[in-house]
Amino acid sequence: MNATQLSQLAQSFDLETWSANGLAEIEASLNQWIPPNAPANLTESMKYAVLGGGKRLRALLVLGAFEAGIAHQDQSELAWRREAALRFACAVELIHAYSLVHDDMPCMDNDVLRRGKPTVHVQFGEAVALLTGDTLQALAFEVLTPEHSLIPAQLQAKLCGLLARAAGHNGMAGGQAIDLKSVGKHLNEVELSHMHKLKTGALLEVSVSAGALCSGVTDTALASLKIFGSSLGLAFQVVDDILDVTAESAVLGKTAGKDADTDKPTYVSLMGLDAAKHKADVLLVQANQALFDSDLSHTNALVAIALKVVNRSF
Amino acid sequence: MNATQLSQLAQSFDLETWSANGLAEIEASLNQWIPPNAPANLTESMKYAVLGGGKRLRALLVLGAFEAGIAHQDQSELAWRREAALRFACAVELIHAYSLVHDDMPCMDNDVLRRGKPTVHVQFGEAVALLTGDTLQALAFEVLTPEHSLIPAQLQAKLCGLLARAAGHNGMAGGQAIDLKSVGKHLNEVELSHMHKLKTGALLEVSVSAGALCSGVTDTALASLKIFGSSLGLAFQVVDDILDVTAESAVLGKTAGKDADTDKPTYVSLMGLDAAKHKADVLLVQANQALFDSDLSHTNALVAIALKVVNRSF
Repeated sequence: MNATQLSQLAQSFDLETWSANGLAEIEASLNQWIPPNAPANLTESMKYAVLGGGKRLRALLVLGAFEAGIAHQDQSELAWRREAALRFACAVELIHAYSLVHDDMPCMDNDVLRRGKPTVHVQFGEAVALLTGDTLQALAFEVLTPEHSLIPAQLQAKLCGLLARAAGHNGMAGGQAIDLKSVGKHLNEVELSHMHKLKTGALLEVSVSAGALCSGVTDTALASLKIFGSSLGLAFQVVDDILDVTAESAVLGKTAGKDADTDKPTYVSLMGLDAAKHKADVLLVQANQALFDSDLSHTNALVAIALKVVNRSF
Repeated sequence: MNATQLSQLAQSFDLETWSANGLAEIEASLNQWIPPNAPANLTESMKYAVLGGGKRLRALLVLGAFEAGIAHQDQSELAWRREAALRFACAVELIHAYSLVHDDMPCMDNDVLRRGKPTVHVQFGEAVALLTGDTLQALAFEVLTPEHSLIPAQLQAKLCGLLARAAGHNGMAGGQAIDLKSVGKHLNEVELSHMHKLKTGALLEVSVSAGALCSGVTDTALASLKIFGSSLGLAFQVVDDILDVTAESAVLGKTAGKDADTDKPTYVSLMGLDAAKHKADVLLVQANQALFDSDLSHTNALVAIALKVVNRSF
């Protein structure tokens, strides 16, 4: 089966049911790992920031990559491998949630609306928003290092390292710093792609890699899945730029036209709407080819997620 | 030798030379671990926030606890054990540095002066300050998870878990949240101590525990060292409150009288200056007793650090 046939097959995959099952598990776990009695009103603000509303693309990528890899493994290790994947899925969502809280703050993007609700600093004040983000980042590493668990220490340490690198200077936070300095500047396509590779790509890519790692795939398959993750990450951003121009705020759940208003460089401003759409399609083909190259057979969920990203319900 | 004699002995310990050697190593390591080519001006802002100026109490506690424990160990493991301690010493300083950057921001303490220099948001702007703190927190976990190192994965995972828990909702960030809600409120001594146990105590205590853990001490000795760490942590805060009333801004390197001005509860406002001084002395005795109880013999550096905290050059 080639990459195109793979894609056709995935269109018959029931992503809705698969996602609903995954989401139920992710939401329950996140709810369990947010401490119920954190000081002051941190429990309330963390729950507000994390629960109810996210589409959980990153977490679903972890679970999708895990499923692709685990089918080929010794099933006796299934329990701790699955626990590790679920913990990483939640950890990456905690990092993503913290980044949204901080990015929305007045000194950054100054957004008042997120998923159709007031942003955390509007709801709880700026100081609490700052602390909520800080706490969520620390919580992600707590979730990855359970004190009583069968997850081997080697995997725990590896997952911490992967997440820290994807979240930090050479990942999400670094990309955000480039974004901040790029407002009103002309970036060429290489520079724009580099920014997005860090800002959103790193976390999407690590979701795929970590899920695969938890499942115990070969290095060769892991390398292919990384390419899938990076292609998908870039596609996600191109589609985001397209939607910023074409969609309504109500559909986005955030303020539309924001990037254009603040004179941020986007794929649409760089190459025009049609070329941006074409680029998203090319990236989808690349992503599917990488899955095909992985030689893994249970990749239906990943293909279906990629398709949904480009046709954009994520 | 009892705890009092221990304390007398430590007065003859050359803390200055010991600290200077430790500091040189810590500064060199921190300098090495701040990425030289981080995006935008993050390298510059991270260096500004982290290097040059800190007294490195937390890092020195890690090294002091490590030295107390390592004397009793198999010396063949010295190299990786020492590397682990040094990495933790730097990681805890990165967490401390990020917390100062965020705490100084206008939405929190709104401080413009830190260690006699403009605070990070004054120097680089609020958005960069926010990102710098976020990046430093992630960097701490990068430093603890080296990809090529003899440090066992089990120790790496344990150190990540300890640091995450000391930095998060049940540690530093949680304490800061309580502090934020306590302005203008009356706290009793139990409530005030709980706040400080989280806000500053958790990071000081984990510095001692992690240093000891890297050295490979017994659980019994570790338990005593934890008591040393928590007593010292509280003593540190009591002395901080005393100095806020009695010292000049130039000596503190930050704005004096700030807590009284902003109507924050302090040990001095709660119990008066003399009683606060007495409390600090009692905590010092407790800390020394715990070291005595640990049965470790090379505790000179820790005793000398504790004495210096209470006589306050730290």
